[in-house]
Amino acid sequence: MYAILGTGLIGGSIALGLRREDAGAHIVGFDLAPGVAARGVERGALSSSAPSAAEAVAQAEVVVIATPAGAVADICKEIAPHLKPGAVVTDVASAKSSIVEAAEALLDGSFVGGHPMAGSERHGIDAAHPDLFEDAWWILTPSGATGSEAYSKIAALASGLGAKPVALDPAAHDALVARLSHIPQLTASALVDAAVSAGDREALLGLAAGGFRDVTRIAASDPKMWVSILRSNRAAVMEALEGFAKRLDSLGDLIAGERWDELERWLAGARRARIEMFVRPDLSGEPVLLTMPVLDRPGVLAEVTTAAGRIGANIEDLRIVHSTEGGRGRLEIVIAGRGAADALAQVLNGLGYAVERGGVD
Amino acid sequence: MYAILGTGLIGGSIALGLRREDAGAHIVGFDLAPGVAARGVERGALSSSAPSAAEAVAQAEVVVIATPAGAVADICKEIAPHLKPGAVVTDVASAKSSIVEAAEALLDGSFVGGHPMAGSERHGIDAAHPDLFEDAWWILTPSGATGSEAYSKIAALASGLGAKPVALDPAAHDALVARLSHIPQLTASALVDAAVSAGDREALLGLAAGGFRDVTRIAASDPKMWVSILRSNRAAVMEALEGFAKRLDSLGDLIAGERWDELERWLAGARRARIEMFVRPDLSGEPVLLTMPVLDRPGVLAEVTTAAGRIGANIEDLRIVHSTEGGRGRLEIVIAGRGAADALAQVLNGLGYAVERGGVD
Repeated sequence: MYAILGTGLIGGSIALGLRREDAGAHIVGFDLAPGVAARGVERGALSSSAPSAAEAVAQAEVVVIATPAGAVADICKEIAPHLKPGAVVTDVASAKSSIVEAAEALLDGSFVGGHPMAGSERHGIDAAHPDLFEDAWWILTPSGATGSEAYSKIAALASGLGAKPVALDPAAHDALVARLSHIPQLTASALVDAAVSAGDREALLGLAAGGFRDVTRIAASDPKMWVSILRSNRAAVMEALEGFAKRLDSLGDLIAGERWDELERWLAGARRARIEMFVRPDLSGEPVLLTMPVLDRPGVLAEVTTAAGRIGANIEDLRIVHSTEGGRGRLEIVIAGRGAADALAQVLNGLGYAVERGGVD
Repeated sequence: MYAILGTGLIGGSIALGLRREDAGAHIVGFDLAPGVAARGVERGALSSSAPSAAEAVAQAEVVVIATPAGAVADICKEIAPHLKPGAVVTDVASAKSSIVEAAEALLDGSFVGGHPMAGSERHGIDAAHPDLFEDAWWILTPSGATGSEAYSKIAALASGLGAKPVALDPAAHDALVARLSHIPQLTASALVDAAVSAGDREALLGLAAGGFRDVTRIAASDPKMWVSILRSNRAAVMEALEGFAKRLDSLGDLIAGERWDELERWLAGARRARIEMFVRPDLSGEPVLLTMPVLDRPGVLAEVTTAAGRIGANIEDLRIVHSTEGGRGRLEIVIAGRGAADALAQVLNGLGYAVERGGVD
């Protein structure tokens, strides 16, 4: 039984995806905006619409908070007293540190931060689609407090929707999305603003070639949504913006000083990096089981999953088999592809784990 | 008879376009790189390959300098003593002020700066194509010294290749391309550089969504070419970079000060501007003749053509009918579309010209 809190594009698409996976799935929805959850029922995404978040989660084993980022902490507070024992909770906000901290304080190890890397130009339940997450990355941000059951369930949720779950440390996630999404967004808007301040629209139109179009396309995004995103990742955005401004300063110095050879080397470096960034490693392949003895202590799961995330190894499945004596257990993870499994085994051995390889039964 | 100096992608495509227009056109090419002009002859673009720029231009009525921006002034110096009387010269460099100044000092009114807004991911004569300029804007930058014959010939060259010639003041052109092309280029590279400094490639790959791809696509461009472009537009680039950095500073202040309403208004303004920029005005339509008495003095042509450029009116044809008494003449221009012609007539009347309208015979 699932609860979806916030049934817009993302929440609605998750519900439709779950429904496709299992036509009989029981999915209760709640949305603050009147009529939105009811529309989700009409579309066949939701089994029913609840009158409050608390009532929506009462019977749920998995709770997905798909509200705007700014509302996640409040929702956690509201639902905490009403969760079933063993229920796991995730969210889909595009900034994680502050949300993970707030949510874990309220929900302990049952919360797993998430960030599906999928979206659409359109918004709302009517734009929702079960294929939205197909082949998309779904970042999970386990911390030291995250339970392995919770992680496993949320990773399975993402996989079931066709996405590729990958784990990152919450702070590393935020620093990355600041650089990969939030600063580019501000930059696109600032480029447009600088351009229109320089001349008439028609002259701009004549001179604005394909490059400018590409670079500024995202400046047409929804301002309200972006303020919410920037707000939720304020510290990381400020830090990244400062680093970016420093780079522009250095470039200005190279140009002012006519240091053309240095400029060319710098541009060549960025060119190489851009090309390499989008050479996709092959992450598919047969599933490979890795097992290792682990201490039953906080942080093990986060260490292993983020190590996998860092080298791009796709964790298909994960569980911790607890020792009956307590204190020790065995971690089993299934990785897609021999190459990725070998690479991860090497990294984990380097971290002190005694990794063994075996086929999946 | 044409001379093309520099027979790479742009020069080669101009030659192929001229050839398509007139199979019998005599087009002499010269390129510093050995074998390039010969390859142009092989491809049927050039009638012959000359051993030097001076020899290439000796019989030419129209000379196109299609070398990298940094070489244009030197080429002008080299060819100046060898030009036929009445020959007109243009270039295709993407920055204009310093080139126009240098070229006019050497070639007087026979030089018309040009910048076709077309290109390709590929380079060199083998990538040349007669359709390269189809429907592209071709900026011309007449100054006070530009002769009307010269302007008319170069505008006709651009139109003949399928492009839409439009006039802009050289400094206004440079300020615009700095904002529309050169700063976006530096920004894309700086965004990549900031991103790769923040994490491992695989994590980057997972998080880098479509927006980042779009914004940084141009970072994969040729560094050598870009250094040449930035170098040729150094002053305008430095000024634009400073203005851009100030915008980022202000954004940082809004975020640091949690001034979210102001940030939302600013983002909304940039969004509106981005959407409006690419709403193309309809510049096609029947040709409309505008005539006006003008003084035979430097600057008239530049004033009229840049006024047209500023409001997006497409000048299809232009000539000055000189008065036999000297000192006065009549300027005739043909504008595409009644709406654009009316708008231009109004602007020119405002500038003190007595514009009359008539059909084209």
